[in-house]
Amino acid sequence: MNPLELKGVLPPVATPFTDDELDTEALKRNLEKYNKTGLSGYLILGSNGEGVYLNEGEKRAVLGAARQAIPQDRIFMAGMGQESTRETIRWVNISAEIGADCALIVTPNFYKGLMTFEALRRHYLAVAETAKIPILIYNVPQFTGVNLTPDLIEALSSHPNIVGIKDSSGNIGQLAEIIRRTPNDFAVFVGSAPVFYPALCIGAVGGILAVANVIPEVCVALKERFDAGNHGEAKNLQFKITPLARWVTAEHGIGGLKMAMDEVGYEGGLPRSPLFPPDESHRSELKALLEPFRS
Amino acid sequence: MNPLELKGVLPPVATPFTDDELDTEALKRNLEKYNKTGLSGYLILGSNGEGVYLNEGEKRAVLGAARQAIPQDRIFMAGMGQESTRETIRWVNISAEIGADCALIVTPNFYKGLMTFEALRRHYLAVAETAKIPILIYNVPQFTGVNLTPDLIEALSSHPNIVGIKDSSGNIGQLAEIIRRTPNDFAVFVGSAPVFYPALCIGAVGGILAVANVIPEVCVALKERFDAGNHGEAKNLQFKITPLARWVTAEHGIGGLKMAMDEVGYEGGLPRSPLFPPDESHRSELKALLEPFRS
Amino acid sequence: MNPLELKGVLPPVATPFTDDELDTEALKRNLEKYNKTGLSGYLILGSNGEGVYLNEGEKRAVLGAARQAIPQDRIFMAGMGQESTRETIRWVNISAEIGADCALIVTPNFYKGLMTFEALRRHYLAVAETAKIPILIYNVPQFTGVNLTPDLIEALSSHPNIVGIKDSSGNIGQLAEIIRRTPNDFAVFVGSAPVFYPALCIGAVGGILAVANVIPEVCVALKERFDAGNHGEAKNLQFKITPLARWVTAEHGIGGLKMAMDEVGYEGGLPRSPLFPPDESHRSELKALLEPFRS
Amino acid sequence: MNPLELKGVLPPVATPFTDDELDTEALKRNLEKYNKTGLSGYLILGSNGEGVYLNEGEKRAVLGAARQAIPQDRIFMAGMGQESTRETIRWVNISAEIGADCALIVTPNFYKGLMTFEALRRHYLAVAETAKIPILIYNVPQFTGVNLTPDLIEALSSHPNIVGIKDSSGNIGQLAEIIRRTPNDFAVFVGSAPVFYPALCIGAVGGILAVANVIPEVCVALKERFDAGNHGEAKNLQFKITPLARWVTAEHGIGGLKMAMDEVGYEGGLPRSPLFPPDESHRSELKALLEPFRS
Repeated sequence: MNPLELKGVLPPVATPFTDDELDTEALKRNLEKYNKTGLSGYLILGSNGEGVYLNEGEKRAVLGAARQAIPQDRIFMAGMGQESTRETIRWVNISAEIGADCALIVTPNFYKGLMTFEALRRHYLAVAETAKIPILIYNVPQFTGVNLTPDLIEALSSHPNIVGIKDSSGNIGQLAEIIRRTPNDFAVFVGSAPVFYPALCIGAVGGILAVANVIPEVCVALKERFDAGNHGEAKNLQFKITPLARWVTAEHGIGGLKMAMDEVGYEGGLPRSPLFPPDESHRSELKALLEPFRS
Repeated sequence: MNPLELKGVLPPVATPFTDDELDTEALKRNLEKYNKTGLSGYLILGSNGEGVYLNEGEKRAVLGAARQAIPQDRIFMAGMGQESTRETIRWVNISAEIGADCALIVTPNFYKGLMTFEALRRHYLAVAETAKIPILIYNVPQFTGVNLTPDLIEALSSHPNIVGIKDSSGNIGQLAEIIRRTPNDFAVFVGSAPVFYPALCIGAVGGILAVANVIPEVCVALKERFDAGNHGEAKNLQFKITPLARWVTAEHGIGGLKMAMDEVGYEGGLPRSPLFPPDESHRSELKALLEPFRS
Repeated sequence: MNPLELKGVLPPVATPFTDDELDTEALKRNLEKYNKTGLSGYLILGSNGEGVYLNEGEKRAVLGAARQAIPQDRIFMAGMGQESTRETIRWVNISAEIGADCALIVTPNFYKGLMTFEALRRHYLAVAETAKIPILIYNVPQFTGVNLTPDLIEALSSHPNIVGIKDSSGNIGQLAEIIRRTPNDFAVFVGSAPVFYPALCIGAVGGILAVANVIPEVCVALKERFDAGNHGEAKNLQFKITPLARWVTAEHGIGGLKMAMDEVGYEGGLPRSPLFPPDESHRSELKALLEPFRS
Repeated sequence: MNPLELKGVLPPVATPFTDDELDTEALKRNLEKYNKTGLSGYLILGSNGEGVYLNEGEKRAVLGAARQAIPQDRIFMAGMGQESTRETIRWVNISAEIGADCALIVTPNFYKGLMTFEALRRHYLAVAETAKIPILIYNVPQFTGVNLTPDLIEALSSHPNIVGIKDSSGNIGQLAEIIRRTPNDFAVFVGSAPVFYPALCIGAVGGILAVANVIPEVCVALKERFDAGNHGEAKNLQFKITPLARWVTAEHGIGGLKMAMDEVGYEGGLPRSPLFPPDESHRSELKALLEPFRS
């Protein structure tokens, strides 16, 4: 692991397409703008990056473009989890060669009923053993239909190459259990913006937040207020962020996230099918949600 | 409503039985001990009070005994929700006559699929209109299989006789939404001890916590540290409380709660069938969990 | 148990109210009409009987009226399950004194997480031991949030006083497992009209079907065609019944069931709050669904 | 579409690995044995074929080997659904070029909450428009976490290039609704062996059944008895098949399925990680389940 500390705010960076084709130049332009904010790093090819819609060549191109655009002092985390253990290992090491600092490994999930404690334990340990960079666990039951229990996270957290987790369940009780039961240097990120401030209160080191593609500065400000012990302002920022955060995730998903990026000057564009953008009739709603953030 | 402010820590008081018969004297002895702590009041006949296992005469006896033992300066909240609107109204007003300060109304839930926004809105408004004391809404999807959405809570919160909610979902994102969307004087209690501290951070006024039957002083201390702005100690107390809180609710339920009460000098006894106590083999585990609280 | 054989079609009889008050005369008039059909008996105070909305006196009155109106050669099954074991036993024996032939015992369900295999096994065995009439198990996870597994049913089915089950899960795989693993004289009823014919194919002895409150003759005809080995006509009747059956259960519930009863000459009326009838705008839809059954 | 009629029993063919590498020779040997039975065809790269664990080259190799081993008078159905519409189209047409007769398209499912009626409708229609061979819809909510409603299936069934469905939900009520609401020539296959016979009763044209990898003749015999109007024997075969069918799917999954294939003379071997085989301690249980099928 490079000496970058795992903490702060990272966006799960959206992947731009032009006429349905990957547009790495647009990606780099977005990253260059983000670099001017206080974001501590980037998750490339995470859930919001439509990684599942890219072929092998496209994924390599995204990683390469990201490496060019991400400065060495920001975290470059790559979403590299695949269904099989062998493909996961292969992709983690591809990302290592291209220059990612660490890899985020989503739960394999197609055979849900078979993804037992033991199957998942073996999977993560096998990946950790073989990976050339540190890995973080990614728990996102709303997409995978599989929840990683605190028991399992505790068991995995003692491996020296498993350095943290992104928990997007939104379940703060579970997040607290994970924090309570893992070593102090195990980096627990929350992946759900509507509970960013409560997650920090209970000990999360940061957030990997879709809405940070749209309002990175405000997400960073919340973290800074919290770090300064200013709970009142941090709570107020939470309430300010939540409606927009829900719109770009739970309510409208990636199509909505990209529409919001377009509205504020980043390059979002359209998601790939079967995703599609919100109906234009929702745009005024979005503009109203963005209004509080315009100065 | 009497001038008591709705806030602080309340236990959902367990109901003692001796040889399977209601024992109101034991109940009063427990309450007298609790009165020496900083608890702000009591929920009588809540979920942990086995209200669903009592017949009409027994419920009246519990309410009467509670009224005798609860001082006027502590909140006497009565769990009075029934499946039908008419029975709910009848019971709220029985509790009013006996002297409860306010009533907690659990979601009607047998006909789950039919408990629509509109059915529940009508139900709560009809109860609120007719109740002689203020009511609070009780959301406990793990028992009811029905979740009350922030939309519904927002719609109900403007009624002058609906003064608050106990949300036991454990969902802090939802709790935050409820707080954000209801009036400032709408009292939002959390009903899940493992997220008590995060709930306070996001704006809850207090907790109605099963584990407060066992360690009332520690639950009160957490709230006091929070009120004093001492986030570090509040968080530490949260981590200290969580394992015991989980044991007496999610892991062993009311039988476990009562066993823990017995261990620390309150009168718990056995729950009514079909509930039953944890196997004796679990008692050493319980003792270990209680150890940190012995001085 | 009287010598009545447990099989055939039984409606879970709706309970009529007039101006929100129990109307036992209307109930008796409905039963007298039903007596002219080939129904093999009646479930009184089942889920569709709004038993959870009746107080003790009302429930006794319904049982008494039913005993008057039900001939000795038809099954009188009483829905008597309560949350506690002691109240369940008390009610089963009240129904026995009033003259029910057998009692249907719904799963206790408020403390869902605590209703383990062992808790439910003890509950049903305790009731069976003490009941003065035979009992049947009632599995209805859509209302209770608790599913009774084939393992548990198998374990209970060897008790001489547990004579059958009503499974309303709609899960035909589970129904088949129950049939495969219980004694031949253990009466397995299906409680979901859209799968009545497939349930008969796999070995169910009959159906306890809400829609049999509306079109008893057609439900009986399906069973008769099946018994005669006429699978083609039985299947056609199934397809004919399904849309109406879904309308009066999944889509509109008891309010819809009662509206449909009114339409065809039975006395349905209004359900008790928080249930309410379908909006009048749905009546033409209902009339269209009833059309195929008018001759 | 070639003139092959879509009906009968098809196994979702397991994919053999030797030392974790794809073994197309073993696959062909299995298919040659299956060709001596009454199976009407094969699903290649279905869920039980571990398609999600194969890379592009491996998938092409499996399709090519299958084309060599499958006679022209048996159905060659290829499981070609991918997360994105464009990759799905690409793969359907790859399979068409290699010689598949039709393609089975599993629901895209990673972004579960975004897989709305409209998103799925557009996806399936776009694939159907562009596919060079007919497609069937694949509904398997236990793996995808997404259920395709009868409303959606009805809407899709009128497209001339969408010729059928495999429904593995196990929900016979839903299967019946699909059959009732789609054209007579829309081929409805059931994908759950424990409800094969009830599904046939209600109108399914056949079954795509994991257990048909192990006991193809018995599955075919059930269908033949049913077609001959011999419901008694068909039901008996159902009860005979169910315990083994559950063992190789719900209980032990693909690792169990492959162990069972090995036991009866096919080449199963080990699944790819994170799947793993049942512990050897389960083998005697498996042998007992296979005993009734040895003659």
